[in-house]
Amino acid sequence: MLWSKLFIPTLRENPAEAEVVSHQLLLRAGYVRQLSSGIYSYLFLAHRSMRKIMQIIREEMDAIGAQEMLLPALHPAEVWQESGRWEVMGANMFRLKDRWNRDLCLGMTHEEVMTSIARGELRSYKQLPQIWYQIQTKFRDEARPKSGLLRVREFIMKDSYSFDLGPEGLDAAYQKHYEAYCRIFDRCGLKYIAVEAHSGSMGGSQSHEFMVASDAGEDYIVVCEATGYAANLEKAVSRPTPPLAPDPDGDLAPEKFHTPGRKTIAEVAEFTGLPETSQMKSLVMVADGQMYLCLLRGDHNLSETKFAGVVGAAGEPRPAHPEEIREAFGADAGSLGPVGLKRPMRVIADLALQGRRNMICGANENDYHLRHVTPGEDFQPEFADIRQVAEGDLDVETGAPLKIVKTVEVGHIFKLGYKYSESMGLRVLDENGQEVTPIMGSYGIGVGRILSAAIELYHDADGMILPPAIAPFEAVVTPVNWKDEAIRSAAERIYEECKSRGVDALLDDRDERPGVKFKDADLIGIPWRITVGKKLAAGAVEITDRSSRESTEVPVAEAARNVAAKLGRA
Amino acid sequence: MLWSKLFIPTLRENPAEAEVVSHQLLLRAGYVRQLSSGIYSYLFLAHRSMRKIMQIIREEMDAIGAQEMLLPALHPAEVWQESGRWEVMGANMFRLKDRWNRDLCLGMTHEEVMTSIARGELRSYKQLPQIWYQIQTKFRDEARPKSGLLRVREFIMKDSYSFDLGPEGLDAAYQKHYEAYCRIFDRCGLKYIAVEAHSGSMGGSQSHEFMVASDAGEDYIVVCEATGYAANLEKAVSRPTPPLAPDPDGDLAPEKFHTPGRKTIAEVAEFTGLPETSQMKSLVMVADGQMYLCLLRGDHNLSETKFAGVVGAAGEPRPAHPEEIREAFGADAGSLGPVGLKRPMRVIADLALQGRRNMICGANENDYHLRHVTPGEDFQPEFADIRQVAEGDLDVETGAPLKIVKTVEVGHIFKLGYKYSESMGLRVLDENGQEVTPIMGSYGIGVGRILSAAIELYHDADGMILPPAIAPFEAVVTPVNWKDEAIRSAAERIYEECKSRGVDALLDDRDERPGVKFKDADLIGIPWRITVGKKLAAGAVEITDRSSRESTEVPVAEAARNVAAKLGRA
Repeated sequence: MLWSKLFIPTLRENPAEAEVVSHQLLLRAGYVRQLSSGIYSYLFLAHRSMRKIMQIIREEMDAIGAQEMLLPALHPAEVWQESGRWEVMGANMFRLKDRWNRDLCLGMTHEEVMTSIARGELRSYKQLPQIWYQIQTKFRDEARPKSGLLRVREFIMKDSYSFDLGPEGLDAAYQKHYEAYCRIFDRCGLKYIAVEAHSGSMGGSQSHEFMVASDAGEDYIVVCEATGYAANLEKAVSRPTPPLAPDPDGDLAPEKFHTPGRKTIAEVAEFTGLPETSQMKSLVMVADGQMYLCLLRGDHNLSETKFAGVVGAAGEPRPAHPEEIREAFGADAGSLGPVGLKRPMRVIADLALQGRRNMICGANENDYHLRHVTPGEDFQPEFADIRQVAEGDLDVETGAPLKIVKTVEVGHIFKLGYKYSESMGLRVLDENGQEVTPIMGSYGIGVGRILSAAIELYHDADGMILPPAIAPFEAVVTPVNWKDEAIRSAAERIYEECKSRGVDALLDDRDERPGVKFKDADLIGIPWRITVGKKLAAGAVEITDRSSRESTEVPVAEAARNVAAKLGRA
Repeated sequence: MLWSKLFIPTLRENPAEAEVVSHQLLLRAGYVRQLSSGIYSYLFLAHRSMRKIMQIIREEMDAIGAQEMLLPALHPAEVWQESGRWEVMGANMFRLKDRWNRDLCLGMTHEEVMTSIARGELRSYKQLPQIWYQIQTKFRDEARPKSGLLRVREFIMKDSYSFDLGPEGLDAAYQKHYEAYCRIFDRCGLKYIAVEAHSGSMGGSQSHEFMVASDAGEDYIVVCEATGYAANLEKAVSRPTPPLAPDPDGDLAPEKFHTPGRKTIAEVAEFTGLPETSQMKSLVMVADGQMYLCLLRGDHNLSETKFAGVVGAAGEPRPAHPEEIREAFGADAGSLGPVGLKRPMRVIADLALQGRRNMICGANENDYHLRHVTPGEDFQPEFADIRQVAEGDLDVETGAPLKIVKTVEVGHIFKLGYKYSESMGLRVLDENGQEVTPIMGSYGIGVGRILSAAIELYHDADGMILPPAIAPFEAVVTPVNWKDEAIRSAAERIYEECKSRGVDALLDDRDERPGVKFKDADLIGIPWRITVGKKLAAGAVEITDRSSRESTEVPVAEAARNVAAKLGRA
């Protein structure tokens, strides 16, 4: 294609509204424009790049026997009411009424619609397994759209759904997706980490996220470079650091002491002269209308996700309000503890407190704490892992150090189990003519997220450095002077030869200074530049690698073949 | 692909809810399923066919230098308010509010959003011309969704938009689209007619529709087989049939006569013994709050579209209400006429009345008519073409007979003019540094409409007969007995050879009776079937043409090559 004919509205300056790199570069390089908060138009370059990403996704989904479909974006309320998610999705769901005043919504995901198709058509075990997918536009009314294409209200996803007769089938479908996702991200040139994750509003038993490390991300994961362990922070486990001071010995009785004005762990540590690790932290949580006391080592934090899992919460747990705490404990946060509870409630103590003795905690009386409190003796908690992994923690099995990394999620796979097939009445007959409920999985990839994550990973001060497989063009042929007859015709010949060798090339036929052309090509991230300039007189052109910045001189006649070879298309 | 692994839920019976053939067959052949009124899921086969249609569209759009983008479906109200169409679109537009209570709508078309991008980025005449397109999902809250994919509430369109410095540029962009559309429909195998059309809510000066003849359609067009003339019924012109009786001679004065209870043209014709062609029909229309009297020959009908054009109506004209008529004329419909109007108003007489003399019309007094009324003498009308062509009319220039044909619209192109660039403030600097307003065009193709129209055109009692270019598969290899080792391995070899020759083939590996396999292949409309059966013993297989039903015997080793050759891929 000819650059002069294309609509590539590059910008000189970083737009003020963009904070993260991918957002800045997507705007500066003329890839996208915002229409409204979290709603973007994909211009020519972004769409071309995303089409390449979608083609890779299609090929890998087809390779695992998945069948492509296309489902509606507009859904009748009924299917979401059947699954129970009409309520659960809350303000995140765009809702509307049609001219007959019937409730509709815009699809955030398609478990409900896919299951409604399946229950209408699947009758027999012979029709299983099935994997159905689509590449389709989703809508989510985000509370805080931001970071360009990373957190948006309208976006393109590949979503797929598996239907199997039993758990072994689901395991196989899940494993196929896991491997297909690895191939997709590999082919897109992403460095990614697959982590164990929790299922959230999807329900289900097992889940992995595919994460790309990036400061622009909003998800934290825990990784161990030594063992390869990786998990979402909400789900990760670790061996905590040892307490900083030994527990006092002996079978001591709890003893109240005055701690005037000392409410935080740090204040009590300072006051007592003992480290935070000698304290028990008391957090009051409410889940499904029930109140729970959660106990953690003073320096540890609660994982609300683990807590929700331990108590089997259906809804999202929340910290108790101050009035609820005062009413239940007769004291305020900062003076709470598990001894002498006014009202019976479940007390969940983190595993890091198991075996500890004679610790400090609140006395359930403002401005008083207790010392010499021993879990399992002075009170009887349930022990469970409810702790969020902290920087510096160690791998559970090997003791190798863990790191916490900020990431962008590019894919997510779920074993849904029976949640949707059960609630929506999907049944088939098995080999014995008995009705059985198929088991489902659900699998998503964000197309715009892949592009954004790639930019976050690969860029420099001059622009994007896109992997060739997803760059809008693989190569640009740049004549330094379009008005020079010899340069122009050499550039045209190289460009034509690139095309005939299957290289997706762009010819920068603009009547611009070379500096402008180089800058623009760097900005939009084209992997290879073939510069036709002064060296042409000596029969040579220059091939520049966008990534390494290295240039090599090659004979004119070799240029196209050279680039084709670099792309494995020799 | 292997049929046994695919989700192709064919039905034995025609679904009761489907009236038109394409709807029946799309359901029966397992192509689509309805999720809600006018909202369909495209299952595997429909999506595969539509992907082929989209690929043809892409290739032809790229060939005219159009650049693909992808714009949002969710639009902020503001851009539609700027163009004035937030109101105009009325109940057809899906509207919603986001979590901040801001007004949004679902895009019915993208003139507004495209123009908002253009005005943000286009600065100079050097950036023109531009043609931008997308293949995207549109939403329209139809009052009467019906006929399967022909009238739906969510659908996929290719829409494109041209921006030019002046009318010559627009003419060129329009012509490019016209030709590209012809190539697209030709490649899709459609028989179509390009007709002059009116622009409706789009605005603009020139417009063509691409129509496929079908009883399932809701648009009427006028065609002349002899001359090739073709136009939308609302826009078509013709030479009317001559009056059935000569007008009385002489300079006669209007004369009132009693016509008790005679209101319709037919009743007055019977009463007077003179044919309907001797009468003037009076219709009262209201456009933009103004009242107009329209006069037509007794047997002719008004084209509201032509009338709107003649008076330059901004909004949609409507017939006057009975009370409005009584108040303005002092008489009721059925006794109205142009002589002795109580209130001044514009009188538009159809061209077929020009030169007529001494005709009959209402007297503006109930139960009375006038005879001997001569337009241009007894009253002074404006003459204009406001008549809808009728069956039996003749071509204006040659007098050849015209036909009225029911059709489905598959494409529509518009010269928009300055409507959107003007109202939304799109300006560029011309060569002299002066601000000018670019001129626009807008061009649409319905992807699902192409599939439906093809089915309407090409089917028989057994199912679809899809053109090879848009059939989900080009060929099916059908072993009559999957358990027969020799038959199976021959079928597998032919199938593999089809694939290696670039034939998009399906292998019917199901353990079903041959009759079931043949019926299903016929139903889903695969152009070529290679049947591997008894003749294999003699080294032969049968190739059947879905369209002609003709079968030919070919040697096993020739089968794949034979089909490839039929598809021009030898």
